[in-house]
Amino acid sequence: MGMASKIPLSHPRYQSLVTRERIAQGLRQGLVHETGLIAHGRGEAFDYLLGETTTFLADHSLEVAAACLLCAQHPVISVNGNVVALTAKECVQLADAIPAVLEVNLFHRTTERITKLVQELEQQGAQQVLGTKGDAHIPGLDHDRGRCDSTGIYSADVILVPLEDGDRCQALRAMGKTVIAIDLNPLSRTAQTASITIVDNVIRAIPRLRYWVDHHTQTAKPTLETMMKHWDNHKMIQETLTFIAKRINSL
Amino acid sequence: MGMASKIPLSHPRYQSLVTRERIAQGLRQGLVHETGLIAHGRGEAFDYLLGETTTFLADHSLEVAAACLLCAQHPVISVNGNVVALTAKECVQLADAIPAVLEVNLFHRTTERITKLVQELEQQGAQQVLGTKGDAHIPGLDHDRGRCDSTGIYSADVILVPLEDGDRCQALRAMGKTVIAIDLNPLSRTAQTASITIVDNVIRAIPRLRYWVDHHTQTAKPTLETMMKHWDNHKMIQETLTFIAKRINSL
Repeated sequence: MGMASKIPLSHPRYQSLVTRERIAQGLRQGLVHETGLIAHGRGEAFDYLLGETTTFLADHSLEVAAACLLCAQHPVISVNGNVVALTAKECVQLADAIPAVLEVNLFHRTTERITKLVQELEQQGAQQVLGTKGDAHIPGLDHDRGRCDSTGIYSADVILVPLEDGDRCQALRAMGKTVIAIDLNPLSRTAQTASITIVDNVIRAIPRLRYWVDHHTQTAKPTLETMMKHWDNHKMIQETLTFIAKRINSL
Repeated sequence: MGMASKIPLSHPRYQSLVTRERIAQGLRQGLVHETGLIAHGRGEAFDYLLGETTTFLADHSLEVAAACLLCAQHPVISVNGNVVALTAKECVQLADAIPAVLEVNLFHRTTERITKLVQELEQQGAQQVLGTKGDAHIPGLDHDRGRCDSTGIYSADVILVPLEDGDRCQALRAMGKTVIAIDLNPLSRTAQTASITIVDNVIRAIPRLRYWVDHHTQTAKPTLETMMKHWDNHKMIQETLTFIAKRINSL
């Protein structure tokens, strides 16, 4: 994070600039793919329209997502380059709190990048990180895009995918899995096809998700299941679009 | 553009993916800065909200911008890495049609990158490209960010800046210059402070601007001046925001 210190704390766009610098640093370190920078930019734009804050709608998604992860038999957190560059430590802490398995899963898969990302997560305190084996395959995706670990994503019942590709999200849903996605674009295919969509920045969402996990650790399972049963993802997306449209009109 | 051919023409996001590949290629060639990829992603998001088309509002801006460039004493087109990566040839053709001076001007200035960008424009047919001298300074900007050519941007009366930083746009306005900006984010400081803002993708906007320049080459100057006099940039931005909000509500 060497360059981050060059940005004055007083800058009105401080948080956004520091985050941007971390993604660019991730590229230089070989953690982040070039298209990850473009994806980050798309996220920045949507976050700007949301007001760069966790909306009440996103917070509700986060609480239901926590309930879902706590009720899961075999929950997995699937992370990519951007997620590790921005929230490695927070993902490790979240995985410990649930507890859930961490797996590195890349759209542009190379053994070198997977190894680097696993090492980065281990440096941030992860005991075990899957993703290097790639001994199973998600049906409906071409060779490299479909690879995952048999003991991780492949056999998971609930998968948290902060920042995921639309095709992959759909393929996981087609396998009958519950997919929790974090995506700032409420119109993306990922947002539209996930079981629970969290329209929020991963930087805010991952710690907040951990807050809800801690909050509900002792909550009775039937109570959590009732929360999940009442969740209407489509309705939340519609309300988020209305929220954004209203906000644009007020600017 | 080697990789672009890997994307099937039938892909629903073909144009967007090819454009993305050109920006990534620009990074590998040393034409584009890392933050240029993030900026491109922000643009993608706003373009998506606009429907990836030149709105009637943007088209009106483009016609007035053409009038303004045709009436200018010393018009300059200021280009950066993203602009060259995406529309080098079209910028050269536009500069010839007006005629206007081309100048490379970078937010993250290095002599190496300026030289590469000048060469790329020359390969696309440019006779002369300014930017390497950097013998003048825009008041109010720190050393490197303010550097420009005395015979180019510094002495221009009208400057077209496809993709420009907000600080620089404001500093050019403070010098009394007419600034025409192309910016997909109607809320950016660049969009808000330019004399004429074109809320459109440079890939569509530059050729369309050339169309309007050709269309009005023979138009009498008083007619062009009347068009400019009636231009209300603030009103156009408001209407563009309304357009986007309506579109989001309809999705």
